Amino acid sequence: MDDDVESGALGPYQDKPRIFPNMRSKSYTPLIFRIFMGINVRVLFVLLLLGLGAVFYVGARTSPILVFVFSVCIISFLLSVYLTKWVLAKDEGPPEMAQISDAIRDGAEGFFRTQYGTISKMAMLLALVILSIYLFRSTTPQQESSGIGRSTTAYITVAAFLLGALCSGIAGYVGMWVSVRANVRVSSAARRSAREALQIAVRAGGFSALVVVGMAVIGVAILYATFYVWLGVDSTGSMKVTDLPLLLVGYGFGASFVALFAQLGGGIYTKAADVGADLVGKVEQGIPEDDPRNPAVIADLVGDNVGDCAARGADLFESIAAEIISAMILGGTMAQRCKIEDPSGFILFPLVIHSFDLVISSVGIFSIRGTRDSGVKSPVEDPMAILQKGYSITIILAVLTFGLSTRWLLYTEQAPSAWMNFALCGLVGIMTAYVFVWITKYYTDYKHEPVRTLALSSSTGHGTNIIAGVSLGLESTALPVIVISISIVSAFWLGQTSGLVDETGNPTGGLFGTAVATMGMLSTAAYVLTMDMFGPIADNAGGIVEMSQQPESVREITDLLDAVGNTTKATTKGFAIGSAALASFLLFSAYMDEVSAFAHEPFKQVDIAIPEVFVGGLLGSMLIFLFSAWACSAVGRTAQEVVNEVRRQFIERPGIMDYKEKPDYGRCVAIVASASLREMIKPGALAIVSPIVVGFLFRILGYYTGHPLLGAKVVASMLMFATVAGILMALFLNTAGGAWDNAKKYIETGALGGKGSDAHKAAVTGDTVGDPFKDTAGPSLHVLIKMLATITLVMAPVFL
Amino acid sequence: MDDDVESGALGPYQDKPRIFPNMRSKSYTPLIFRIFMGINVRVLFVLLLLGLGAVFYVGARTSPILVFVFSVCIISFLLSVYLTKWVLAKDEGPPEMAQISDAIRDGAEGFFRTQYGTISKMAMLLALVILSIYLFRSTTPQQESSGIGRSTTAYITVAAFLLGALCSGIAGYVGMWVSVRANVRVSSAARRSAREALQIAVRAGGFSALVVVGMAVIGVAILYATFYVWLGVDSTGSMKVTDLPLLLVGYGFGASFVALFAQLGGGIYTKAADVGADLVGKVEQGIPEDDPRNPAVIADLVGDNVGDCAARGADLFESIAAEIISAMILGGTMAQRCKIEDPSGFILFPLVIHSFDLVISSVGIFSIRGTRDSGVKSPVEDPMAILQKGYSITIILAVLTFGLSTRWLLYTEQAPSAWMNFALCGLVGIMTAYVFVWITKYYTDYKHEPVRTLALSSSTGHGTNIIAGVSLGLESTALPVIVISISIVSAFWLGQTSGLVDETGNPTGGLFGTAVATMGMLSTAAYVLTMDMFGPIADNAGGIVEMSQQPESVREITDLLDAVGNTTKATTKGFAIGSAALASFLLFSAYMDEVSAFAHEPFKQVDIAIPEVFVGGLLGSMLIFLFSAWACSAVGRTAQEVVNEVRRQFIERPGIMDYKEKPDYGRCVAIVASASLREMIKPGALAIVSPIVVGFLFRILGYYTGHPLLGAKVVASMLMFATVAGILMALFLNTAGGAWDNAKKYIETGALGGKGSDAHKAAVTGDTVGDPFKDTAGPSLHVLIKMLATITLVMAPVFL
Repeated sequence: MDDDVESGALGPYQDKPRIFPNMRSKSYTPLIFRIFMGINVRVLFVLLLLGLGAVFYVGARTSPILVFVFSVCIISFLLSVYLTKWVLAKDEGPPEMAQISDAIRDGAEGFFRTQYGTISKMAMLLALVILSIYLFRSTTPQQESSGIGRSTTAYITVAAFLLGALCSGIAGYVGMWVSVRANVRVSSAARRSAREALQIAVRAGGFSALVVVGMAVIGVAILYATFYVWLGVDSTGSMKVTDLPLLLVGYGFGASFVALFAQLGGGIYTKAADVGADLVGKVEQGIPEDDPRNPAVIADLVGDNVGDCAARGADLFESIAAEIISAMILGGTMAQRCKIEDPSGFILFPLVIHSFDLVISSVGIFSIRGTRDSGVKSPVEDPMAILQKGYSITIILAVLTFGLSTRWLLYTEQAPSAWMNFALCGLVGIMTAYVFVWITKYYTDYKHEPVRTLALSSSTGHGTNIIAGVSLGLESTALPVIVISISIVSAFWLGQTSGLVDETGNPTGGLFGTAVATMGMLSTAAYVLTMDMFGPIADNAGGIVEMSQQPESVREITDLLDAVGNTTKATTKGFAIGSAALASFLLFSAYMDEVSAFAHEPFKQVDIAIPEVFVGGLLGSMLIFLFSAWACSAVGRTAQEVVNEVRRQFIERPGIMDYKEKPDYGRCVAIVASASLREMIKPGALAIVSPIVVGFLFRILGYYTGHPLLGAKVVASMLMFATVAGILMALFLNTAGGAWDNAKKYIETGALGGKGSDAHKAAVTGDTVGDPFKDTAGPSLHVLIKMLATITLVMAPVFL
Repeated sequence: MDDDVESGALGPYQDKPRIFPNMRSKSYTPLIFRIFMGINVRVLFVLLLLGLGAVFYVGARTSPILVFVFSVCIISFLLSVYLTKWVLAKDEGPPEMAQISDAIRDGAEGFFRTQYGTISKMAMLLALVILSIYLFRSTTPQQESSGIGRSTTAYITVAAFLLGALCSGIAGYVGMWVSVRANVRVSSAARRSAREALQIAVRAGGFSALVVVGMAVIGVAILYATFYVWLGVDSTGSMKVTDLPLLLVGYGFGASFVALFAQLGGGIYTKAADVGADLVGKVEQGIPEDDPRNPAVIADLVGDNVGDCAARGADLFESIAAEIISAMILGGTMAQRCKIEDPSGFILFPLVIHSFDLVISSVGIFSIRGTRDSGVKSPVEDPMAILQKGYSITIILAVLTFGLSTRWLLYTEQAPSAWMNFALCGLVGIMTAYVFVWITKYYTDYKHEPVRTLALSSSTGHGTNIIAGVSLGLESTALPVIVISISIVSAFWLGQTSGLVDETGNPTGGLFGTAVATMGMLSTAAYVLTMDMFGPIADNAGGIVEMSQQPESVREITDLLDAVGNTTKATTKGFAIGSAALASFLLFSAYMDEVSAFAHEPFKQVDIAIPEVFVGGLLGSMLIFLFSAWACSAVGRTAQEVVNEVRRQFIERPGIMDYKEKPDYGRCVAIVASASLREMIKPGALAIVSPIVVGFLFRILGYYTGHPLLGAKVVASMLMFATVAGILMALFLNTAGGAWDNAKKYIETGALGGKGSDAHKAAVTGDTVGDPFKDTAGPSLHVLIKMLATITLVMAPVFL
């Protein structure tokens, strides 16, 4: 290797001021960061202590349960600080690694700031819209009796919305922040031991998982306690505690609003860069992945951070927030119907479950240890087995703590054995999660039949590979749907037979049973998120190792970790979509409760035999198809811009291929960043505007044709059909994408002719097609499903 | 060209006894054909006259309207005999053409016999199942009062089922019979004049269109009249005429049962042969389409006949039959509710509309004339413009006859202006059809933006082409859904405000309004089917021209006709899915009427807020995904067998490429035939078994949890969600496939580098992927949607 090679590889650092001009010039520090950065550290510390004191004060005034929740959250924040310190204490490796890592960090942070700048402006605009809608909405009888005015509700909802949006943004930032710092440390550790590299990646992932889950829990808890104390809930003449959770819906909507754009923007970014880099690099020029000669390589590595880490953080944050709030609403409604004396256990149950989630997931994370002889190369173990062992520990603990929590909080003298039924519901949820992970693995892991068949179909060409992949993806929807169906029906039945009855003696626990099953499914969320975050960090580490031209043995280690990361990423998606499926049914019920509260009349049925309601369903399903189309085509269009830019660079700088000239990484980063910001608006706006427009139009139609509540019914049916179509479409996109990826990896292990064969070329085509499926459209659909549910909750007054 | 070439091209004929051994040995003549063939012609003629006399006798005893319907049908059968004679009188061209055509005919007829042998066995089995179910079902109050016993209902339903299946089979046979005879005559005529070739193809298509539509109409009419006379309807103490249409559902189910397997088997056959032939021929060996050196070329040409002609005939037959029956049921129900004195107009309205359809479509077909100077080559006109002119004539006549029919049959003194509202509903349907055709053209014709963008994305590789095509297909669902939504809501509203009210004064005409709109949409069905049949005949003619190595100028003519055929095929699919969407809503309402009749209690709501009902929807949507997966993968698997066989032949007989050895066409035909028969069973069985299983399971669950009608409700929701998902999926598959096909054709016109460029290769990949989408899975979904609706109607007793 001569000097030219060296300087080619290290280009980004030396040119730093020149390389990211577009990013730099565009980026600006959001106000909140500037404020924090301007404050003296000691003042900050005092403020923090004061804040904590206030939190515990309102918590203690509300319920002892909340004190427990706050304590666990604070402890896990401290734990996450420890994890960061531990990760950051690791060395950054030789300067060539650190330089690449710096370039990635600059690109990621630049994009993040610009993206969140755009998102925060949209959020402010939407907050104004919500405010004006709520100022003109009618009040519910409950509110009237409790004396909460129209304007109070409006400000509460908007404040909750903004807080949810802010926390969601922080969750995304935290995910990216740690991953751009951990990647280089994992690369460096890979030079020493596979196990140490694994441990760093896991702990980095664990840090953001604890922060994300902890923030979701503490955010809801603080809002709840604050409203409780401020509104004087449960004192005579004021609001009832069972109605309190309805005030929190703004938080969930804020979280999903930000998550939707984070996922869309990040997803388009990462896959446009990936597809663009692959199409010219791998397919046309025949250079390996992450080769420093590829001008789009830095953009590709940046993409992993903004697309997978930041977006997934925001996604899981909103999943948990939305699920907690909807379960609280259902718990409150049920407690009220059954006239349970102290309903706080039923309402606060989800918060406790997720507090335990933090505890048991920490145990799981810390159970993954470095080997003692980390200085010496030990024989490489299967990293998947290690992660799986941690998961098993977490799941066993989850079953135990779940049983404990149900006994603690859901025991009521009216139905002494109800808690056992609900514990079984939780078990149903945990088992559903487990089966989901297994099914996803079956369809996406090349150890099993489906991916091998897909790989075989690559040997007859590009066309048969795509047909087989599409079929595989479509087919893979069947088992998860059957599992979800069984879970819903059995959890509902367990809840219904729990012995809880309303005034007229009808069993009422069914929906809450489904809610508990959802919580069961999400009861190991922090560990699952850790495994998920592990993937992109390992992927990035591999990229840094490749770019800094480390020896083959180091690459082998990062390749191994990367392959495991692919599997964990795929399984997390199965997990996310399963919980979305369960949660959506809760949010739907919450929506019906909310509508009947506002409309002053019962709203119990969504009858699809009414033509307008059927049309709502048709439009809802269509929304999913159109959204997926726009998400995929956004990636396609942006990737084409990258392809043209990379081709241009190869033509204008012919020396790049011989390491004689440096590629201009910065231009690719800037092109992808601005294109993905532009492209995220259209699908995002579609998702937000269409339910509002449909609801409003049918409200007017209902007014003229004499159908009361027509708008609300049509929106309900739109929501349900969109949820069903969204679940299926997301399963299809995620699984097909994962299977294509692994079919390619399978061929790269030497099967069917190995790398460079015609079968491999066909498999690369499949992988390219799968990229936007599995990392842009699919994950965005998870968020979309829940965003639709929360937007209808918040916008309900528009439809009435 | 030496002798070897000649013999290579003419191989199939000379080797005939050796070439199709597998087909021959398997084929058998169905009993019905053997009986007919054994009878003396004069006896047959006398029998025919006697039959006609009987038909007119029962018709006259039932209603004068039926006499009109019978007369029109008989006249159009005579017209179709004239068209056949005209087509068959044309010359078959030089012997080399006739020889190829013979090989195609043998392959198609052989496959048809084997396929329909299998289907008829399954139909007999299913008939037994239906019989035993009906013998044990409970009777409705109407039946009890009219004295129709359990066994009478059972035999009536089974007889209707078998008749529907038989007619559907004949419809398919007729479509194929004429196309394998017309193809060579079109090829031959193409040597003389484009216009004459066009005319032959149109008249051949018109023949089968008239037979298919006429048979659907006369079949329902004969059943209706027979039951009317036999059961002594409307005499005191017997069945009411408004309940009569419910007895016909078996006919619709029989028709859709056969159509489903015909479409699946034919669709798999045609696309497996096409994809297999293209993958080795075009992509690997670089020889043109339909080149005689390709061993799979005869199989490919056979596929056009069994897949497109036979299957589409059966498909349209069942569309019309199902739509007529459901509209009759709704008309009857409404007439009963409104206490209309003579309900026969409302019940028989659909039969009259389709009788007029026969008349006006005949005018349209005969409006396409050969040029006078057919001996001389006239300048080539745009065939699309000629077909479009005929369509315009047909549409104008449809509007007129529709208005006439509504005034004639739907005028009632209770609501004197109701007929005008219904005429407007018909107009809504006709306009919907027109807009649908336009939207499909916009998304699949390369004159417009979407296909051009798709072609452009081919220039960056296989991957971006597929991503863009998938996005295009997903996006193309939006406009049709919006149009359908507007049609449903506005037709319902027009019907509701027609002035027809039930006893309590509630407006009741809404659903019938939707039914009338569906009839409006289908009121030009025969002409649309003619245009559709035209496509595969032209395609085949092109193949024969290519294989018999005619001069370039002849190929140009057939290529032009082929391109037009592609567009008409795509638009027919848009038309078919639009009418399926409208019809499904009718069938759904008919199902609810039927259930409430059997359950002796009102069944008016399908409330998706009930978990089990929601789960039914989830399962219904999943059914669509799984069915599409299996249909696509069947093509993929069969195509791989073809690829391997063709590769084997090229290796074992290296002389093929130099025209020195003859390829073994027969083996490919045999392989595709047996594989597609095997592969059609799995998806077909899934479609039939799953609603029955789901309904039965939830019926049991409902029994144990104390939910009456749970099975029926879950099936209703399954049906609705499956319909919505099916409409979207079919739109996606059809449009994406059509767009890929035409993007390739656009590049072949010389754009973006033209034939042989990298962009063209990527476009060929897209075309290959699109093949099973648009010709196997997509059209099968049309049938599936209606089959689900009819199966739930017939199997309703299982769920109660």
